[in-house]
Amino acid sequence: MSTKNNHNTAAEDFSVAKRLRQPFTGSKKIFQQGSRDDLIVTMRAVEQTDTPLEHGLEKNPDIPLYDTSGPYTDPNINIDLSQGLTSIRTAWIQERNDTEELSGYSSNFTQQHLSQEQWKVPQFKRTRKPLRAKAGHNVSQMHYAKRGIITPEMEYVAIRENARRQDIQDQTLTSQHLGAHFGANIPTEITPEFVRSEVACGRAIIPANINHPEIEPMIIGRNFRVKINANIGTSAVTSSISEEVEKMIWATRWGADNVMDLSTGKHIHETREWILRNSPVPIGTVPIYQALEKVDGKAEELTWEMYRDTLIEQAEQGVDYFTIHAGVLLRHIPLTAKRMTGIVSRGGSIMAKWCLAHHKESFLYTHFHEICEIMKAYDVSFSLGDGFRPGSIADANDRAQFAELETLGELTKVAWEHDVQTMIEGPGHIPAQLIKDNVDKELHDCFEAPFYVLGPLVTDVAPGYDHITSGIGATMIGWYGAAMLCYVTPKEHLGLPDKHDVRDGVIAYKIAAHAADIAKGYPGAQIRDNALSKARFEFRWEDQFNLSLDPEKARSMHDETMPKEAHKVAHFCSMCGPHFCSMKITQDVRDYAHQQSLNNNEALSQGMQEKSEEYKKSGLYNKV
Amino acid sequence: MSTKNNHNTAAEDFSVAKRLRQPFTGSKKIFQQGSRDDLIVTMRAVEQTDTPLEHGLEKNPDIPLYDTSGPYTDPNINIDLSQGLTSIRTAWIQERNDTEELSGYSSNFTQQHLSQEQWKVPQFKRTRKPLRAKAGHNVSQMHYAKRGIITPEMEYVAIRENARRQDIQDQTLTSQHLGAHFGANIPTEITPEFVRSEVACGRAIIPANINHPEIEPMIIGRNFRVKINANIGTSAVTSSISEEVEKMIWATRWGADNVMDLSTGKHIHETREWILRNSPVPIGTVPIYQALEKVDGKAEELTWEMYRDTLIEQAEQGVDYFTIHAGVLLRHIPLTAKRMTGIVSRGGSIMAKWCLAHHKESFLYTHFHEICEIMKAYDVSFSLGDGFRPGSIADANDRAQFAELETLGELTKVAWEHDVQTMIEGPGHIPAQLIKDNVDKELHDCFEAPFYVLGPLVTDVAPGYDHITSGIGATMIGWYGAAMLCYVTPKEHLGLPDKHDVRDGVIAYKIAAHAADIAKGYPGAQIRDNALSKARFEFRWEDQFNLSLDPEKARSMHDETMPKEAHKVAHFCSMCGPHFCSMKITQDVRDYAHQQSLNNNEALSQGMQEKSEEYKKSGLYNKV
Repeated sequence: MSTKNNHNTAAEDFSVAKRLRQPFTGSKKIFQQGSRDDLIVTMRAVEQTDTPLEHGLEKNPDIPLYDTSGPYTDPNINIDLSQGLTSIRTAWIQERNDTEELSGYSSNFTQQHLSQEQWKVPQFKRTRKPLRAKAGHNVSQMHYAKRGIITPEMEYVAIRENARRQDIQDQTLTSQHLGAHFGANIPTEITPEFVRSEVACGRAIIPANINHPEIEPMIIGRNFRVKINANIGTSAVTSSISEEVEKMIWATRWGADNVMDLSTGKHIHETREWILRNSPVPIGTVPIYQALEKVDGKAEELTWEMYRDTLIEQAEQGVDYFTIHAGVLLRHIPLTAKRMTGIVSRGGSIMAKWCLAHHKESFLYTHFHEICEIMKAYDVSFSLGDGFRPGSIADANDRAQFAELETLGELTKVAWEHDVQTMIEGPGHIPAQLIKDNVDKELHDCFEAPFYVLGPLVTDVAPGYDHITSGIGATMIGWYGAAMLCYVTPKEHLGLPDKHDVRDGVIAYKIAAHAADIAKGYPGAQIRDNALSKARFEFRWEDQFNLSLDPEKARSMHDETMPKEAHKVAHFCSMCGPHFCSMKITQDVRDYAHQQSLNNNEALSQGMQEKSEEYKKSGLYNKV
Repeated sequence: MSTKNNHNTAAEDFSVAKRLRQPFTGSKKIFQQGSRDDLIVTMRAVEQTDTPLEHGLEKNPDIPLYDTSGPYTDPNINIDLSQGLTSIRTAWIQERNDTEELSGYSSNFTQQHLSQEQWKVPQFKRTRKPLRAKAGHNVSQMHYAKRGIITPEMEYVAIRENARRQDIQDQTLTSQHLGAHFGANIPTEITPEFVRSEVACGRAIIPANINHPEIEPMIIGRNFRVKINANIGTSAVTSSISEEVEKMIWATRWGADNVMDLSTGKHIHETREWILRNSPVPIGTVPIYQALEKVDGKAEELTWEMYRDTLIEQAEQGVDYFTIHAGVLLRHIPLTAKRMTGIVSRGGSIMAKWCLAHHKESFLYTHFHEICEIMKAYDVSFSLGDGFRPGSIADANDRAQFAELETLGELTKVAWEHDVQTMIEGPGHIPAQLIKDNVDKELHDCFEAPFYVLGPLVTDVAPGYDHITSGIGATMIGWYGAAMLCYVTPKEHLGLPDKHDVRDGVIAYKIAAHAADIAKGYPGAQIRDNALSKARFEFRWEDQFNLSLDPEKARSMHDETMPKEAHKVAHFCSMCGPHFCSMKITQDVRDYAHQQSLNNNEALSQGMQEKSEEYKKSGLYNKV
């Protein structure tokens, strides 16, 4: 797809770049149907080779994996970006019979936008009319959950969270260490009813705007798999629509569960439309960014009316969650004055500027009930922004941050009165020893509403490597109870991430989320580790690559030093060389012990006789 | 330096590649003299630019940093690899008058090696004779410490650990969060006497072989800065001497406190000589690797006599610590039989193979007292190897691992009877929730002997990114009480790391070690974070780059999107663009508030009147 400096013409190519559609090597898409024909959960399975034993072969099972890449990695599906993805939720939404199709868009901005003679950037050809809740209705998943209704979305995420782990019976693969869960309450099997109950009490959310039927539903909550979010978006200085759409696809390929479109600069509306129509994952935004563009960056000129119009504009496009910095209060702004790095949240600083300019409380706070009315008419979820998050470890856990967190707790209660799904954003920069206090306070003050954190970075001294400084904090905070981790790329603090940075950021956060799942004892989380380690120990190089988070990277690094195909089955790698491979020697040790046993232990000293008995007990014989 | 496939000739160029000698931008070497003229501790200081204020400039102090790069980053020192580095410890060692200069090398292997007509690889021209303790003497730092002697080495590390933090008075820079130390006992100032007491009780070691006088002494212990080790070394499959010497210099440039030469394959002895003579940091080895080469990789042919000769060979070259897998006991081998990944330690698997082949207890265990006699004659420190470390998270904290750890505890006591400095090696692969148990058990069973850990990796699923999976575990374990972190590069499990991998591995571990220092509350650890964050907030881009762990990377990433010099002072970056820089807006907020105050608050509403008072109290006025 190429949309740079030209209009949208029939001639244009809307196919997706090959590298974005390459299926993962050694993997196939698998599908599990739910209680209805149109509820089919897509996953990925890694097909393993056999283990050669002395007598015959040992079969190794396919390893099913939770899959965020959507149809892009399914070679049997044609994708044309100009058409967008197939909507899998349309029937589910219509059946509920609580929405109405609008004749047109309610937002003035959208109406003006669509009435333009021509556009500077390619226009996504809209085929659907926007949906909105019928008067007096509430279409949020929380609303249904509270009424005891299990929606297809809830069943979908239940099936998805289990990721077919029941397929794996071999104890070698299923054995897992006990987790330390810090009060999480994770069942051994995720049922649709459990999903409903978690959504009903606000401990989890399913971001799913009725105008974004293309998504494969997912859930965010401390009792489910830890999720990750990838931020993309154009800025006034650089990037283009096509680049951002590709970044979205790229991010989901590597494992992004959600994507936030943080576009600023020109063409925000159109960029968002292209991303939404082609995204299999929920999309979040920070509406204040676009609102600020509408007043040429003059924060003090922001008004509730135009902000409200922006919310409706984006809700009717299908944005699944809004970051809203309603916790930035006039009376708390002075608390930031003595900080090392003041206010580093963009939304937070914009609202702080507005509050001071007008000597008024933020319109996000004073109009919060009206905002809730909009959210529930489309099922947009709140991501209550942390406008005062610390921008340096020096500012971590200070009064400004915690005062806002307490306000977010109040607002959570209000949102829940409206049955609006809500998650809470968190920092930022926090030294390791202060991370747990942060989670504990959020869980307490915000009644376990899902905690959605940026990092945190555990040190400020490594610009260029902040996917690592923050991946460390992210692992800890996910383990302690955070539900979603917002990635940080190596470019953080330095520039706009490119595709390479997006991939590095996503993989670093998949590592953090997965390590956190294992640490909190998420059922089946260790299967992938066990399978990969077994493959590694048995020198099934290809299986090891295919089971890894980034098979391409693992394979290419291996091939740097041992390119030959023969080496793919070689019982050593370039790090140790033939004599020194400890795994090979271990196998020799086992074979040797086995040989000894065949000699009927005659040759064995009294000492070894004992050992040999221990071997028998220890089951070494069965093993080799 | 080019040593590949040709002999050492006078014509050869032994200068160090420019990129290895480039001083860090914006930095200068600083020197602090101790109690004697020949005790001068070298550090680095980052020179900062001024902060422009409304009225005049605010000076920002030089930030002193602990520096591992040795003379290589000092433009005033000429370095010729064929001559080696200047020895700074020679006088200190001679004064003690407890060593004798040998007429030649005691090792048969070394004698044969030196008597060769010609060598296949360039030979380092030896100018010194080897030293050994006089009969009946013990030259270990622990031996002196136990007798109440404060050696120059001890004073050197005391000065070095404080890293001139007393130079920084500004509270904005010195303020630091309380640490959570888990029983560590870190004084606010490190005194030579404190160093002595920690070495005397075995809680810290100063690796410093009397035949490696070139090193700048450093200390490893839980009550000091967390240190990192970088592994380098040729393998039978790839690499060369010159590459490995460059890797050593490269690793110390980025922050390696120690380097282990894990060379296998040909020319191990000569590679080691080149590395030792040019290394400003302690060098460790695993002697069993070379011993195995001497018997063509046939573990069962290893003998105590030739292993002993190898220890002496390496001790007289100047190796500072030996990894010795004396805890691998015959009776424990069966405990590894049912493991997911068996025995993954090379040394461990070699010894296990030997034990089974001979139905005997390991000669490392049966001859441990004789090994101690050798160690104390040269002050080589023990790094008691964890031959049964888990190679997958499935095997973490199992009986095999812990049985060996208990044996290492026994051996620690024996080593301490001989006043031999000792540290304990640890895993490996450990899920996050099991890391603390690991440290606690080591601290208990091994009486707080320094814990030196590889990683640990908190998940097995990310080959190609194991500097991250392990950097996460390394941060936690360093925080909990480990004293030194052995780096893991992105190539782990896949191949031999090249220079790029070494750099990535070292930086990831500097992040882990620094984050751990902050988490355990190491005095002054946060100064660098505070200075960098202040520079970031004030848009002093060059200072931000220069204060970072990898200035080159930070600068080049920034320049990818904003190359112009003007942008180095621009109050925004490409990530946010001009309107959206939150830090810029924060400054506007402060200026605005300041302006309000000048209007004598007349315009202010009753509400803002209060706020304005709060501002005054909060000191915002003084700040802007």
